[in-house]
Amino acid sequence: MPSVMKKKNTSPVRRNAAATRLRILDSARAAFYRAPYERVGLRDIAAAAGVDASLINRYFGSKKNLFQEALTGAFEFEASLESTEKFARAFVGYVARQKCGGSAADPADKLGVILRSAVSQEASPIVSGIFHREFTLYLAGLLPGRDREMRAAMVGAYLAGFRLLCEALDEPSLNPADSEKIVALLIKALKPCFEGD
Amino acid sequence: MPSVMKKKNTSPVRRNAAATRLRILDSARAAFYRAPYERVGLRDIAAAAGVDASLINRYFGSKKNLFQEALTGAFEFEASLESTEKFARAFVGYVARQKCGGSAADPADKLGVILRSAVSQEASPIVSGIFHREFTLYLAGLLPGRDREMRAAMVGAYLAGFRLLCEALDEPSLNPADSEKIVALLIKALKPCFEGD
Repeated sequence: MPSVMKKKNTSPVRRNAAATRLRILDSARAAFYRAPYERVGLRDIAAAAGVDASLINRYFGSKKNLFQEALTGAFEFEASLESTEKFARAFVGYVARQKCGGSAADPADKLGVILRSAVSQEASPIVSGIFHREFTLYLAGLLPGRDREMRAAMVGAYLAGFRLLCEALDEPSLNPADSEKIVALLIKALKPCFEGD
Repeated sequence: MPSVMKKKNTSPVRRNAAATRLRILDSARAAFYRAPYERVGLRDIAAAAGVDASLINRYFGSKKNLFQEALTGAFEFEASLESTEKFARAFVGYVARQKCGGSAADPADKLGVILRSAVSQEASPIVSGIFHREFTLYLAGLLPGRDREMRAAMVGAYLAGFRLLCEALDEPSLNPADSEKIVALLIKALKPCFEGD
């Protein structure tokens, strides 16, 4: 990182290549957020990024590699881990906004991408590895007490299940109007996972 | 139902037809348990049931209808609802056995079928309707207190998420050896949903 910062004469070509790469990654995240792995086409990602499809293969090698790279990077927990209540409220609020907002793709939403491709035959091994490393192990590192990995995974289970019901199953009994009551239940589930014993 | 019971002279042909129908349904449940909707072929279901594929269309009309009929029927909660602890222990034990037993298909496992096809474009509307009616509303009818539907749906979220992590994501931090600790956490999540306030 510092060596790049020091280079004063980065060529325009190299800067363009880096920008194109980022544009493809953004476009890939949005596409994988909207549909399961198998239903996402490289041509659509290329078109949305305004590049030729051959560039994706040149930059990333394959659809699998592009998918993996689009998902890499730890989940962001720090800000909301100050209190379980804050965390639960932010999470339920986010899901309710996604539900009410319809299909607006949030490229930063890695759990959304993971849920959509969790049962995909090809993508499932990638998704499993990323979830374990960047959700479970990362969150475990932020928790106090014993059995931190298992407790972090249980947080993942509750959040994934809630989103699955709200988004994939569109469960009518989880109504955004009941958000406060849902938050109250979720706090009771999450608190023992976050705080340990 | 009673009128059928009274008929003494049910013809062998009719009895065979009913038996074949049941055999196709069993074979369909096993197939939809193993793979998402799109990846299940009617020919494989027919072969496993020992019938010609054309019979499936004659008896059920379409793959969608067969899927719907294979999933119909309420979830069985009564026996395990006597205590939250019993329920949680039975559930975690079941998932651990499925995980350790590998791919053994359990045709009675409707939640397993639903999870595998929840993000399927074609099957998702069927799956949503069945989950709402036969899990959420049915369980809500067995619960005491206020907000029963929402609380029943939250039970579904916790169970679905736990199975998603154990089965689809194969999360290594949810180890069957930790079952008792997992049960203890799950009880804390489920108790407020089952008992209300």
